[in-house]
Amino acid sequence: MEEGVKLTSNRKLEHLILCLCRDVEHKKKSGFQDIELIHRALPEINKDEIDISVNFLGKKLESPFMITGITGGHEISYKINKELAKAAKATGVALGLGSQRVAIENPELEYTYTIVREVAEDAFIIGNIGVSHVKYAKKAVEMVDADALAIHLNPLQEAIQPEGITHSKKTLEKIGKIVKELDVPVIVKETGAGICYEDAKLLKNKGVAAIDVAGAGGTSWSAVEAYRSKNSHLGKLYWDWGIPTAISTVEVREAVDIPVIASGGIRTGLDAAKAIALGADIVGMALPIMKKAFFGYKEVISFIENFNEELKIAMYLVGAKNIEELKKCPLVIRGKVREWLHERGFDTKKYARRSLHGR
Amino acid sequence: MEEGVKLTSNRKLEHLILCLCRDVEHKKKSGFQDIELIHRALPEINKDEIDISVNFLGKKLESPFMITGITGGHEISYKINKELAKAAKATGVALGLGSQRVAIENPELEYTYTIVREVAEDAFIIGNIGVSHVKYAKKAVEMVDADALAIHLNPLQEAIQPEGITHSKKTLEKIGKIVKELDVPVIVKETGAGICYEDAKLLKNKGVAAIDVAGAGGTSWSAVEAYRSKNSHLGKLYWDWGIPTAISTVEVREAVDIPVIASGGIRTGLDAAKAIALGADIVGMALPIMKKAFFGYKEVISFIENFNEELKIAMYLVGAKNIEELKKCPLVIRGKVREWLHERGFDTKKYARRSLHGR
Amino acid sequence: MEEGVKLTSNRKLEHLILCLCRDVEHKKKSGFQDIELIHRALPEINKDEIDISVNFLGKKLESPFMITGITGGHEISYKINKELAKAAKATGVALGLGSQRVAIENPELEYTYTIVREVAEDAFIIGNIGVSHVKYAKKAVEMVDADALAIHLNPLQEAIQPEGITHSKKTLEKIGKIVKELDVPVIVKETGAGICYEDAKLLKNKGVAAIDVAGAGGTSWSAVEAYRSKNSHLGKLYWDWGIPTAISTVEVREAVDIPVIASGGIRTGLDAAKAIALGADIVGMALPIMKKAFFGYKEVISFIENFNEELKIAMYLVGAKNIEELKKCPLVIRGKVREWLHERGFDTKKYARRSLHGR
Amino acid sequence: MEEGVKLTSNRKLEHLILCLCRDVEHKKKSGFQDIELIHRALPEINKDEIDISVNFLGKKLESPFMITGITGGHEISYKINKELAKAAKATGVALGLGSQRVAIENPELEYTYTIVREVAEDAFIIGNIGVSHVKYAKKAVEMVDADALAIHLNPLQEAIQPEGITHSKKTLEKIGKIVKELDVPVIVKETGAGICYEDAKLLKNKGVAAIDVAGAGGTSWSAVEAYRSKNSHLGKLYWDWGIPTAISTVEVREAVDIPVIASGGIRTGLDAAKAIALGADIVGMALPIMKKAFFGYKEVISFIENFNEELKIAMYLVGAKNIEELKKCPLVIRGKVREWLHERGFDTKKYARRSLHGR
Ligand SMILES: Cc1cc2nc3c(=O)[nH]c(=O)nc-3n(C[C@H](O)[C@H](O)[C@H](O)COP(=O)(O)O)c2cc1C
Ligand SMILES: Cc1cc2nc3c(=O)[nH]c(=O)nc-3n(C[C@H](O)[C@H](O)[C@H](O)COP(=O)(O)O)c2cc1C
Ligand SMILES: Cc1cc2nc3c(=O)[nH]c(=O)nc-3n(C[C@H](O)[C@H](O)[C@H](O)COP(=O)(O)O)c2cc1C
Ligand SMILES: Cc1cc2nc3c(=O)[nH]c(=O)nc-3n(C[C@H](O)[C@H](O)[C@H](O)COP(=O)(O)O)c2cc1C
Repeated sequence: MEEGVKLTSNRKLEHLILCLCRDVEHKKKSGFQDIELIHRALPEINKDEIDISVNFLGKKLESPFMITGITGGHEISYKINKELAKAAKATGVALGLGSQRVAIENPELEYTYTIVREVAEDAFIIGNIGVSHVKYAKKAVEMVDADALAIHLNPLQEAIQPEGITHSKKTLEKIGKIVKELDVPVIVKETGAGICYEDAKLLKNKGVAAIDVAGAGGTSWSAVEAYRSKNSHLGKLYWDWGIPTAISTVEVREAVDIPVIASGGIRTGLDAAKAIALGADIVGMALPIMKKAFFGYKEVISFIENFNEELKIAMYLVGAKNIEELKKCPLVIRGKVREWLHERGFDTKKYARRSLHGR
Repeated sequence: MEEGVKLTSNRKLEHLILCLCRDVEHKKKSGFQDIELIHRALPEINKDEIDISVNFLGKKLESPFMITGITGGHEISYKINKELAKAAKATGVALGLGSQRVAIENPELEYTYTIVREVAEDAFIIGNIGVSHVKYAKKAVEMVDADALAIHLNPLQEAIQPEGITHSKKTLEKIGKIVKELDVPVIVKETGAGICYEDAKLLKNKGVAAIDVAGAGGTSWSAVEAYRSKNSHLGKLYWDWGIPTAISTVEVREAVDIPVIASGGIRTGLDAAKAIALGADIVGMALPIMKKAFFGYKEVISFIENFNEELKIAMYLVGAKNIEELKKCPLVIRGKVREWLHERGFDTKKYARRSLHGR
Repeated sequence: MEEGVKLTSNRKLEHLILCLCRDVEHKKKSGFQDIELIHRALPEINKDEIDISVNFLGKKLESPFMITGITGGHEISYKINKELAKAAKATGVALGLGSQRVAIENPELEYTYTIVREVAEDAFIIGNIGVSHVKYAKKAVEMVDADALAIHLNPLQEAIQPEGITHSKKTLEKIGKIVKELDVPVIVKETGAGICYEDAKLLKNKGVAAIDVAGAGGTSWSAVEAYRSKNSHLGKLYWDWGIPTAISTVEVREAVDIPVIASGGIRTGLDAAKAIALGADIVGMALPIMKKAFFGYKEVISFIENFNEELKIAMYLVGAKNIEELKKCPLVIRGKVREWLHERGFDTKKYARRSLHGR
Repeated sequence: MEEGVKLTSNRKLEHLILCLCRDVEHKKKSGFQDIELIHRALPEINKDEIDISVNFLGKKLESPFMITGITGGHEISYKINKELAKAAKATGVALGLGSQRVAIENPELEYTYTIVREVAEDAFIIGNIGVSHVKYAKKAVEMVDADALAIHLNPLQEAIQPEGITHSKKTLEKIGKIVKELDVPVIVKETGAGICYEDAKLLKNKGVAAIDVAGAGGTSWSAVEAYRSKNSHLGKLYWDWGIPTAISTVEVREAVDIPVIASGGIRTGLDAAKAIALGADIVGMALPIMKKAFFGYKEVISFIENFNEELKIAMYLVGAKNIEELKKCPLVIRGKVREWLHERGFDTKKYARRSLHGR
């Protein structure tokens, strides 16, 4: 293993440990506290008939849920990925891998990723590669026989960490090229700072299949770097940088008609219901799932089952018997989220005034 | 007594005790703190001539006040209902019973309800049955010679509690049928999560005689279930679910022209004045009344007398000599309530700009 | 001295002591914290040439300041009124007396009021009588050779205190009659709950010469009664009732073109500058002046001199060389005050966009 | 040294020490917390190619940064000015001197200023004189061979301090005259209370070359005077007087097309990025620089380098490869800043909806 890879690998371990043991979340909220679903005293549906399954990029998920990328490439990642795969298999949710770069540059680490396909033959598995290493895209897909590839954008973290790669020229062009070359759909995802209307449009035009907003409000990579660095100053200053997830979800949904994954600070099925009613197709989580994975797949499964139940309660209470109906439920957007959206030119009133089944 | 009934009965006792001893109220407010009545330095009325009586569904109430349903069917409910009946008789307010299902399924418990009619021959008494048990509607009315029947909707509590009935299909149809079958007016009420514009319209179309909004801001049945459950997780997540009472009052009033009962977190005559100026005909309370009832009817009477005095002071200070005038007083809607109503398309300015007697 | 008068007299003493020793102010603010005068880096005036004198109801005041009515009729009032008169004489501000009813019903107490005219022969002295005792109006004026008579409205306090007079029918008619009968101008004042647009219009139509808004934000008579009463419940509930002074100032100014006195929670010359820029002609204070008066007229004088200096600094910083110019200075209305005024239909933007000397 | 000068000199020393050891900043914020730059997940630039240099009044600065005037004229100022000059030389930022009046009235103190030109022959150095002493303008420029002269306005401090000069008549005329007489460009600056739209227009019309807003949110001269004065009352009352810097930046930018310096509470490169995106050309700081200067020029240099890095990160994350591009980046204006700007008639939405490169 050459020096560079070792460094990366250790850094990724450090990340895991910090995320596990420190408060690495944004101080600013994801924005869902400003979203209010409207209670229906007359749901007119039966809760036990609610269907939360979705078709996502051609495959069926039992629940509109994706485990989003959690760094791999270390011995410990083998264990984590194995637990995640077992959970994904059992619950029928999508499983996004952490960045595969380390394993491509260092094939002896491949086993830490390939384990997921071994465990979960039929799961919807998403490969992952940073935008600076798109050259590895094909290999990443092949390594795990991925159903889709996620290209992650993390300019914030790269800018904060001393070793960061901050060459972003022609990123779009590179993404466009990969989209053409790959046989599987390409998802572009942020990692905790969100995606704005303008970038969503650009991505759509390059042919990406889906966008994972990964907005501000959950894991903050500036926060992580603040803990890592001897000089925590930059990490602290940019701790809260980014577009809150609820806002980013609207910005992206207003810009494109491809599937949208809401993530970044999503923590409950109630958050998910709000995100989906705002326009997301499915939601994603990383931090809470990672924490459960340390205690084994049963914890992950039970977390996802709780999530499903929470989501179903919200759907029952707004009278939505499936995810498509949930998307049409009225909701009220308030506070800072409303203020942002107004300034940016998005009509918030239409969400509050639409109505399910004309009821 | 068969097993199922015993269970219910115990659950209801648990409810009573939790409501008595724990903080079971919403953390979010009822919304009346965002409503400001406009002080008249020149009331131009005499306070001692203020008339707070109302005609409600054909009967006269001495005060625009309803004790709303408090669970019955347990030995202790006999005692509580007796005290409530004495108080209702003495003060001339309406008395809503708790759910009568348990006594219908289990006739030896009837006496815990029938006591109210024995004590208060002429009071306005409202029977009560959950929407899942409307088949009992007729019996419920007959049991206490009820002046009206309240059908309660509580999808939230049913969804949170493990034993909950969450079959809500065709609820509306069932309500419509009952309305036709009964000789007495049917009131539909929520139980702490509120009723929205859409549901109010649907209920009106089915012929219900009045709507009790029972919005968020007072007793939270999620909270109650959070205390009951070993796994308090769902109850906590949904603790604050629902439409705040002040908002729900406007939503319902804007939708229908039948009588509206504002309840859910109403605690004083000042809250009541605001609710009525927002469009309610009368207000209701459960939790504070229940707490007083434990100490006997005198406490309940004195609470209602205080309420009346508080209400009269508000009316005096806005120059309204009766409830009809109070409904026309200008008021200012602010903060979160205003934000919600704007988003939903309701004009708040009209409340602030209307004027009593063109003064 | 008959029983009734003794009672009043003691009550008034109680009031004084509570105002001196307890926190009797509204918890809600007077609204001036939501008003922002706009700093002029280029005042283009000399501070030492600023003229804060005003003509008020035909007499010149050295400063736009009125000591507003502080209860009299007790031995101790003699002392207080004497100190106030000395201070008013020395500083050239207007001096409002407390209610003279007790001295009219009980002539041996007259000396507690007449002292002011003895001490301050030329001061602008305002007699005072409650609206329920307007029959005493003429006597009140004669007693102190008053330059004007203030009729005070205090429906809130009357409603809260057990002994209160809450007969407000035909109040307006009575005021109209007094206005016609008296030779001196009639000021109508509230006592801490404010005056709204509607009432200001009505008062103007009856010919009153000036309105003292006495809004919410300063002394709360509900608070005082909460301390006095064994049962503090009503006083606490209505502690914060009323129209905040900043709002009331705009409501009254928008309604009428007669002089407006802003009072109720005015505490500094900076508050005064804001009130005058909002439309007041002069400001008034009771509580802070009363507290100083206990320590002698020198304290009162020094308080007023401080006030004058504070006011001049504000005027200097907005470039207003006299009170008329101050009235034309732009200011920004924010927060709750702006929200209220918008709802009520008053244009707040015009204040922010007007400009002094077209500069 | 005559008495008057000694007094000034001591006062200035007092100022330095208070600024060093006490909390002299506004309690109200500079407003930048209400400004949100919009994250670009796709910066499409390389961070290491970002150019933060600017042309300012004809000279190139390596960074859009000015050390703004810090009082001089005392022995200790010699030391501070020397350190500042070394830092300015090393980093290529502009260096504003403190008021030169004391050295003009007292030539033996000249060395405390001339040291800056000795050390930093090529730096952009700005002379400084109060608006009350513009007669010294020419001498001030000559003393240090200044590239520009800053005339400072500080009516607030003058009004608060007992020894203050509050003669502001014809200030504009004087400024106009100086502008004509001097060969170097004239910058007019406030000192912590900001400049409004109206004053910016007036200054522009008099031919000033640039405006330094020096708004509220950073050093408060009222605060400083509150500490100095035995009677801290006025200083405390006016502690927070002034136009917040973010607001003042917009007001001035909307009024004029000459260069704008945003200062007053600017503390980081992130604040600077926001200020520039709002319309400033460069930013200025006094307090934080002064504190570093006490520890030597290396500390100042390292502070400025940090600032540069912070600024570059913000620029990278919004995809701006130079300062001109940064000015065109969209941003969202919220909260109190938005409220103020709306009331004053400035369109905030245009900032949120503009877009860089049509992207
Ligand atoms: C420990 C950890 C490692 C992560 N590694 C990756 C990664 O390798 N690739 C990636 O695209 N995102 C990665 N992420 C970002 C997440 O996928 C996600 O976008 C982000 O954490 C926000 O979601 P959350 O608030 O639910 O954590 C990682 C997150 C965590 C917590
Ligand atoms: C102890 C308790 C028992 C209740 N039982 C019933 C019931 O049986 N039927 C019903 O319609 N509502 C029931 N409610 C709901 C109340 O009628 C009311 O809608 C709700 O508590 C909100 O009002 P509050 O905030 O004044 O308590 C009950 C409330 C309490 C506190
Ligand atoms: C001790 C005390 C006695 C008062 N007595 C009278 C009175 O007799 N007549 C009257 O018109 N107002 C009376 N007021 C009300 C004041 O004139 C004034 O309207 C009110 O206190 C609000 O102003 P403030 O906040 O500056 O105290 C009294 C106020 C105080 C504090
Ligand atoms: C110690 C000190 C001395 C100052 N002296 C001057 C001065 O002589 N001339 C001047 O124009 N501004 C002077 N200022 C004001 C600053 O230039 C600046 O406008 C103000 O402090 C706001 O910026 P800040 O918040 O970064 O300190 C001084 C500021 C400080 C802190």
